[in-house]
Amino acid sequence: METVETTEVTTTTTTSSGKTIPESGYVPPSPPPNFFALDFALRLLLLAATVAALVVLVTSKQTIRVATNLPQPFSFATRSAYFKNSPALIYLLVALSVGVLYSIITILSSCFAISRPSPSPKLYFHLIVFDALMAGILASATGTAGSIAYLGLKGNSHIGWTKVCNVYGKFCRHIGSSTIVTLVASIVLVLLVVLSSYSLYRRSH
Amino acid sequence: METVETTEVTTTTTTSSGKTIPESGYVPPSPPPNFFALDFALRLLLLAATVAALVVLVTSKQTIRVATNLPQPFSFATRSAYFKNSPALIYLLVALSVGVLYSIITILSSCFAISRPSPSPKLYFHLIVFDALMAGILASATGTAGSIAYLGLKGNSHIGWTKVCNVYGKFCRHIGSSTIVTLVASIVLVLLVVLSSYSLYRRSH
Repeated sequence: METVETTEVTTTTTTSSGKTIPESGYVPPSPPPNFFALDFALRLLLLAATVAALVVLVTSKQTIRVATNLPQPFSFATRSAYFKNSPALIYLLVALSVGVLYSIITILSSCFAISRPSPSPKLYFHLIVFDALMAGILASATGTAGSIAYLGLKGNSHIGWTKVCNVYGKFCRHIGSSTIVTLVASIVLVLLVVLSSYSLYRRSH
Repeated sequence: METVETTEVTTTTTTSSGKTIPESGYVPPSPPPNFFALDFALRLLLLAATVAALVVLVTSKQTIRVATNLPQPFSFATRSAYFKNSPALIYLLVALSVGVLYSIITILSSCFAISRPSPSPKLYFHLIVFDALMAGILASATGTAGSIAYLGLKGNSHIGWTKVCNVYGKFCRHIGSSTIVTLVASIVLVLLVVLSSYSLYRRSH
C-alpha cells in the first residue's frame, strides 16, 4: 500500500484484481512518476560511451619508422607511442574500466526498477551517491588525459616540452577522441544525478 | 501544515500559539531531521580548502638564476616558473575561483536553512545538482593539474619531456599542495551530495 500516504487507519476493500482501494470516495494521491525508462536510456548511453572510449584508447598504439645515422641505406629504426608509457593514460584506462563495470551493474538495477510502479527511495539515494562518485572519477580522468593530450598537441615552450602530435598523429587523435568521449560519459553521470535527485524530490512532497 | 502528511480532510483546531493540531488524538509524524549544521560546517571546510589552494597556486612563482655562456664572471640570467605559463594551471585557477564563489553563495543559503525546522525539498534538489556539477569541475581540475605536477616531478623519458622539479623545487611543491587541497575540496563536495540526498531520502518516506 505504498501509494497511500496517510498514516491514519483507513477502512479498505480489496478488489478482485488484488488492488487495495479505500472506501468512502477517498482518492489516493497519484504515485510519483517513474523516470527509470529515461534512467535506463542514459545508462545505456553511459555504457556505450565508456566502451567506445576504452576501445579507442586501447587501439591507440602507433609505430613510426625513423631514419638512423647508420651508413648503410634503408636503415630505419621503429619507435612506438603507446598509452602504457604514460601514467595519466593508464589512469584513464582504469577509470574507464571501472565505468564500464559500473554502468553494467546499474543497467541491471535500472531494469529491475523500470517495472515497479514506485521504486524505493533507498534505490534513488544509492544511485545518487555512486553516480556522483563515478562522475568525479571520470571527470578527473578526463582532466588528466586531456592535459597530456593538450601538451602533446601544443607542447610547452617555457619548460621545453616539445609537441609530439606532428609525429604521432594517429596516437594523438585516439587519445583526444577517448578524452572527449570520457567527458561525455561524465556529463551523462551528472545528468543521472539530476534525474535521480529530481525523482526523490518529486516523492518528498 | 508541512509536518502533517495526510491528504484526507481532517478536522483541525488552532491553538492560541497559532499551531495547527488535528483532533481525536492523532499524532503528526516528527519532522525529518535538519542536517544543515553539518552542511554548514562542510561548506566552511570547502571555502577554506578552495581559498587555501588558490593562495598556494597564486604564490607559486619561482625565479632561479642560471649561468650563461658569456665570458665575463658573475653573468647570470634569471628564469621563472609561473603558473600562467601552463594552460592546465590556468584551468585550475579558474576552477578554484569558481569554487570559492560557489562556496560563499551556498554558505549563505545554508545559513538561511539552518534555522528552519524543515527546509524545502527544492533547496536540497538544487544543492545536489550544483554540488555534483562543482564536484565534477574541481575533480577535472585536480586531474589536469595533477597530471602536469606528476610530469614535472618524474618527466617522461619515452617522449623526451624532462622533469623540472629538481630545478624549480618551490614551484613544484606549491603546485602539488594546491592539487592535493583541490582533491580534498572535490571530496567534500561529494560528501555534500551524499548529505543532501540523504536528507531528501529521509523526507521521502
